[in-house]
Amino acid sequence: MNTHSFLYRENLSLLTDLYQLTMSYAAWKTGHTEKEGVFDLYFRHNPFQSGYAIHCGLDSVLNFIENFKFDKEQTEYLASLEEPNGNPIFEKDFLSYLRQLQLNVNIDAIEEGRVVFAGEPLYRVQGPLLQCQLLETSLLNLVNFETLIATKASRVKEAAGSDLVLEFGLRRAQGIDGSISAARACYVGGADATSNVLAGKLFGIPVRGTHAHSWVMAFDDETEAFLTFAKAMPNNCIFLVDTYNSLEGIKHAITVGQWLKQQGHQLLGIRLDSGDLAYLSIEARKLLDEAGFKEAVIVASSDLDENLILSLKQQGAKIDIWGVGTKLVTAYDQPALGGIYKLTAMKEKGGQWKDRIKLSEQLVKITHPGIHQVRRFYHDGLFAGDMIYDIRHALSTNPIIVHPHDITRRKQFSLQDKYEGLLIPVVRKGKIIYKRPSLEESRAKRAHDLKHLHPSIHRFLHPHEYPVGLELGLLNHKQEMILALRGFKENM
Amino acid sequence: MNTHSFLYRENLSLLTDLYQLTMSYAAWKTGHTEKEGVFDLYFRHNPFQSGYAIHCGLDSVLNFIENFKFDKEQTEYLASLEEPNGNPIFEKDFLSYLRQLQLNVNIDAIEEGRVVFAGEPLYRVQGPLLQCQLLETSLLNLVNFETLIATKASRVKEAAGSDLVLEFGLRRAQGIDGSISAARACYVGGADATSNVLAGKLFGIPVRGTHAHSWVMAFDDETEAFLTFAKAMPNNCIFLVDTYNSLEGIKHAITVGQWLKQQGHQLLGIRLDSGDLAYLSIEARKLLDEAGFKEAVIVASSDLDENLILSLKQQGAKIDIWGVGTKLVTAYDQPALGGIYKLTAMKEKGGQWKDRIKLSEQLVKITHPGIHQVRRFYHDGLFAGDMIYDIRHALSTNPIIVHPHDITRRKQFSLQDKYEGLLIPVVRKGKIIYKRPSLEESRAKRAHDLKHLHPSIHRFLHPHEYPVGLELGLLNHKQEMILALRGFKENM
Repeated sequence: MNTHSFLYRENLSLLTDLYQLTMSYAAWKTGHTEKEGVFDLYFRHNPFQSGYAIHCGLDSVLNFIENFKFDKEQTEYLASLEEPNGNPIFEKDFLSYLRQLQLNVNIDAIEEGRVVFAGEPLYRVQGPLLQCQLLETSLLNLVNFETLIATKASRVKEAAGSDLVLEFGLRRAQGIDGSISAARACYVGGADATSNVLAGKLFGIPVRGTHAHSWVMAFDDETEAFLTFAKAMPNNCIFLVDTYNSLEGIKHAITVGQWLKQQGHQLLGIRLDSGDLAYLSIEARKLLDEAGFKEAVIVASSDLDENLILSLKQQGAKIDIWGVGTKLVTAYDQPALGGIYKLTAMKEKGGQWKDRIKLSEQLVKITHPGIHQVRRFYHDGLFAGDMIYDIRHALSTNPIIVHPHDITRRKQFSLQDKYEGLLIPVVRKGKIIYKRPSLEESRAKRAHDLKHLHPSIHRFLHPHEYPVGLELGLLNHKQEMILALRGFKENM
Repeated sequence: MNTHSFLYRENLSLLTDLYQLTMSYAAWKTGHTEKEGVFDLYFRHNPFQSGYAIHCGLDSVLNFIENFKFDKEQTEYLASLEEPNGNPIFEKDFLSYLRQLQLNVNIDAIEEGRVVFAGEPLYRVQGPLLQCQLLETSLLNLVNFETLIATKASRVKEAAGSDLVLEFGLRRAQGIDGSISAARACYVGGADATSNVLAGKLFGIPVRGTHAHSWVMAFDDETEAFLTFAKAMPNNCIFLVDTYNSLEGIKHAITVGQWLKQQGHQLLGIRLDSGDLAYLSIEARKLLDEAGFKEAVIVASSDLDENLILSLKQQGAKIDIWGVGTKLVTAYDQPALGGIYKLTAMKEKGGQWKDRIKLSEQLVKITHPGIHQVRRFYHDGLFAGDMIYDIRHALSTNPIIVHPHDITRRKQFSLQDKYEGLLIPVVRKGKIIYKRPSLEESRAKRAHDLKHLHPSIHRFLHPHEYPVGLELGLLNHKQEMILALRGFKENM
């Protein structure tokens, strides 16, 4: 049991949609308990019109898997659920079956911190259909949110460049765990610290903070407020200057900074939390420099996101540290990642796999049949393209990938090229076989991967689309399946 | 300890911003431990351009208060935190002080399920400044999110009218607790059931669900898939019909419905999850009616929100039950409520209260000084206006409220009018004195309050602004304080 798993000490096996349980019941009742399937978990569009996403959520998924079981408390609740006619939904024998159920699934996953793209599987789950279904909703919940937030954090950090980014979102986050898992995902995605003390304790993330307006308001005079704080914590003074008037506040901070200097201490900086941050930071820098506080930093906070940070930098704002809250932890401009979990193959009675596909009038909503791996090719030290292919089929020496929604867009690779398989085994027969990296290692994976992305894919506005495609053989097979289901089998 | 408080069994005293702890330390270090203050918690704008909001979060706040304490594990972590120079931030004696700290605050709050408006305090917290600060961040986290989601649910339910609304958001919610507290807030706000089984177990919310595409995909044939489900759960059949082709799927559901009828059971309905829901639901209704399934319901799900529901109704869609997920639990179009927590008065050494105010160039960001209650007046059986007033000052017999951002907009009441005080005592000297209502009672409060709102305030597009104002005496006092701080004392 991972010591990080604050929220996972509870049994979360009921953290699922009811229909997963009714489907499991129907499978059990009709003798399909051991029927095996394979599912892919992926998202259809990069969030925030970004050129890439940062995968996060694997650690939570493994915590969930590790603690998955139905005990008496859970099945007693399930026994109380009724059909519309007043009869119990679930038979007692099914609930006994659940109580003795031991997960027997295999999971392959992309590691946390890796750069990933729309359309490619982040997780491949294989095992009894019934068990795969019971995991679906929790996996989606954990991966959708954490990947969304890690991606947002990565964009904010890219906008901030070498400046520090502090995650300040706790008060606006989506509940307790919304804040805690967001703080962790932000750190994986590139934030440098959090204000959330509990997240600091649970995950070892550096914690940072200054003081609030209320500290200033509790005194008759702003200088007195700063001075009192300085007396208590002379080595930890970053004064919030905008309670009454920011420019006056900066002067008051300087006055107390001079007192600190006389005592042998240092004014660490000031924080701006409202107003015209470009203008105020430039004025603050001048005032601080003129008074001999060239080392004092300027922290800014106030509904910041990556676009505002870029804009402030373009305006020449003199901000050293960015406190980013609401817009980061709620992923304000796109608060959900539409990750999905789709059946791609089923094992027949004879042990043969049979591919599965879901149709839709929207091409993007048609699933990919088969059992998949993602191969990332390198070229000239950069990522060159990701190929989704079926692990059961031999690859040609010069495999071609095809854009999943435009079959005329293709790219050819060579098996001589450097490559890696992104999906790696993390769970076998229900047991975790993956050595979990530290949070710092996952952060390092993000930094490493971003260095291997062409700059055109990092760019915020209209990024270049990174090549992700289906291997040509898989694409042809998919098209045949679609046409057959639509009654065009003879016309192929 | 409330049995509902799944996530609160853990000590959450560190679920706070670091600066609350450093400010507390500075207060302790400089002898201000017992200095008393009063804080208001409120939000500045109704979310979603709504005419009203539904308050939710009090139950979570009380769970948090009930379990608030610093134990050894927490203070050991705090002892490990360092200033930039490598010295510990907190002295050992302060950490001992925290360990023996017992909350001694008084809290008055508006009950859950009540209709509330921007600008009026939802909570008034009074007590030692240090303690009030330690509560700030968690209170904001809990109340911001739950009030946001309850308000969204209320709008969705208003759009759905007498149709059932099912909350289906777990897979896209913001983490584990994001989903659990959202399910509860949705139920308070008017949703009729959730798909989230754990939320059902914790809070007694009805749980509902159908089946997924994967059930259909696991069989060679859609009719076989429906029939197998029907054999397992003949009294619980709502078939999802859009895996391959919705109109064909409806026909297959009817085929299996006829089989169910022969067995003495009933086809409960079908679910549409993609495509043109207006067209498909009208066609589905025709096909079902023609086949003699007039009682079978049509459930719709597919990125629904209140606007889409209204639009579908205007198009004559034949939908009976609305499954609403992502857009509801993430409050997609406005994923954060900007609730704030502001110091409004401080107790002087002599025991006298001194009012406090925070200035800003934006009028809406200037706080209200004083110690407040909210009085809701009734007229002709409807809510007539909410008056924010200072409980220490006598009211005139015909009190006037003034719009906080336009002093020429006023409304006069009479003390003869029917009224109620919205803030009621819930915590005294750190102990809960409030008898917590059941979730059903909180739901009923919402329904009751909405009946007392003029229809123009319910309306989705450009609702009428409900009168919320400062009592004239309080307004004048506030203006004097602002002008004095801006150096215009003599010009009054």
